[in-house]
Amino acid sequence: MKKIINSPENFVNEMLEGIYSAHPDMVKPVAEDVRCFVSAKKINGKVGIATGGGSGHLPLFLGYVGEGMLDGCAIGDVFQSPSPEQILEVTRAISSGAGVLYIYGNYNGDIFNFDMAAEMADFEDGIKVETVVAGEDVASAGPSAPGQKNTRRGVAGIFFVYKCAGAAAAEMLNLAEVKRIAEKACENVRTMGVALSPCTVPRVGRPSFELGEDEMEIGMGIHGEPGIRRGKLASADAIVDEMLKPIIDDIPYAAGDEVAVLINGLGATPLEEQYIMYRRVSQILKEKDISVYRAFVGEYATAMEMSGASITLFKLDDELKRLLAAPANTPFFKQMQL
Amino acid sequence: MKKIINSPENFVNEMLEGIYSAHPDMVKPVAEDVRCFVSAKKINGKVGIATGGGSGHLPLFLGYVGEGMLDGCAIGDVFQSPSPEQILEVTRAISSGAGVLYIYGNYNGDIFNFDMAAEMADFEDGIKVETVVAGEDVASAGPSAPGQKNTRRGVAGIFFVYKCAGAAAAEMLNLAEVKRIAEKACENVRTMGVALSPCTVPRVGRPSFELGEDEMEIGMGIHGEPGIRRGKLASADAIVDEMLKPIIDDIPYAAGDEVAVLINGLGATPLEEQYIMYRRVSQILKEKDISVYRAFVGEYATAMEMSGASITLFKLDDELKRLLAAPANTPFFKQMQL
Repeated sequence: MKKIINSPENFVNEMLEGIYSAHPDMVKPVAEDVRCFVSAKKINGKVGIATGGGSGHLPLFLGYVGEGMLDGCAIGDVFQSPSPEQILEVTRAISSGAGVLYIYGNYNGDIFNFDMAAEMADFEDGIKVETVVAGEDVASAGPSAPGQKNTRRGVAGIFFVYKCAGAAAAEMLNLAEVKRIAEKACENVRTMGVALSPCTVPRVGRPSFELGEDEMEIGMGIHGEPGIRRGKLASADAIVDEMLKPIIDDIPYAAGDEVAVLINGLGATPLEEQYIMYRRVSQILKEKDISVYRAFVGEYATAMEMSGASITLFKLDDELKRLLAAPANTPFFKQMQL
Repeated sequence: MKKIINSPENFVNEMLEGIYSAHPDMVKPVAEDVRCFVSAKKINGKVGIATGGGSGHLPLFLGYVGEGMLDGCAIGDVFQSPSPEQILEVTRAISSGAGVLYIYGNYNGDIFNFDMAAEMADFEDGIKVETVVAGEDVASAGPSAPGQKNTRRGVAGIFFVYKCAGAAAAEMLNLAEVKRIAEKACENVRTMGVALSPCTVPRVGRPSFELGEDEMEIGMGIHGEPGIRRGKLASADAIVDEMLKPIIDDIPYAAGDEVAVLINGLGATPLEEQYIMYRRVSQILKEKDISVYRAFVGEYATAMEMSGASITLFKLDDELKRLLAAPANTPFFKQMQL
């Protein structure tokens, strides 16, 4: 384990202290707990959006707290859920009368703790909370039948859900509308990843899994959850071909459709390689007459020093495009009006 | 060598094809050469700013081509200079009557080729070219005596030179003024790096150097140039203490001075660790009563998958602050007016 840290025990809190001291104009802690992270700017009467989850995925989750995106984030230990009490404190801090929407990834610990926080917020403070659970990793499970629970993992694609729901809240839409948009974004986003090397949770001190010197695992999750195929490292084009097919096949696409694309580095994969992957994605989409409204390439949801990447397609309609095009200004994601 | 690429030979050009297809509204190639990279937006009568250098450092160098920063970039092979002809083509494309300023890092190959391009631009096209060579790595050489050539390497701190010179050009200042500001930025910026693991140049196929399982090298350059001390991996705070002291000592600082800080990840070092480093930088500056106007944390100048980071301090006056605060919109760096 070769990390620039002081001690595994202080990894999360010292990282947070660094973020607060680097961006004091944008974010602040509440309830005297550095893990209760909120925007420095509160807009009265706006639906508050909270997220949360384990640490180790920067810029996910807290990095999207800021103007035009999220209002708060409850932060857990590395790869662990925050507590219901922390989520409740964030909820209280960001509530301003229009209700609060929780958007987080599909993991059991998070679901349990966010549900409990929502009940406490309603019971103790009379804050109306709605919830949207994002899960779009096509490698993790099949599509859910109508009315059935989605069992897919939430990974990098939650960025698009944050962006559209955040823009909707910034337009001062009401809680039901912001929730509808977050749900629509979830329905239109699909992701798959590939891992080339593991990461090490600081407190554990050994790699989360092993991969041979010439191996990759297609479909692996951002905590090292098993993928769908382990094999010899292939070329960039072959990797993209294998990942993109199930992503495209999972939603009905027709010629003339429009998408946003996210190529997400998992931590140790250079930006150069991410663009080589995007090159191939762009070729395939062109062949299928699917046009790219906007491409995002970089680290949006990592697993510390894991090597690998994920591909996300986000199918757009006019409403989602309008919301995606809106400006945003957070410590980690900035966009001028498109 | 575990890379997501198709072939070492096509690494640079396929990366560039990916960037052009991802950001067609922002950048384009000229002279039918993907390595001649310019902004899609040309402003008449503005001083053009060109940079260039070897590939493998994304987002350096080309990533800062865009509104409020640079106008063009000539791109070499991995860790190699672009040719004079490529620099000349970029110069021609971005010239619009107000002259062109070259800003690049202090490497012999680049100096030779940029100087030749400047002569050709003057002789063949009558384009007036001025040059500022950035070199701010305090680990690479001592300070230069007055009137002597600066022998320090240029590393991540060139970001601040680009930002201030780019903002000055966007204010429509003339060539002499933009050059004066670039030189002033160079005089006020200092950097030092630390490496924990090497990177592999694709065509070479083996790591550029070796470091033991528990070793780090303080002061190493972004191509693996020797640093000032190799030793056992220390704590984040101890590493920062060792790096920051020579940076601060190199410029006279007094209580009440103001700086911008850049913590730059070299490629494989997680953002979490970069913020743990920033936390300590912030503590030390507070002790010295040096205030931080703005902190930048992330990957600004990498060495592909090298693990490590650099710290840059940029000493500010009112003019540099005004220019740093100006908006910018490039594929890799976006900032609203501060």
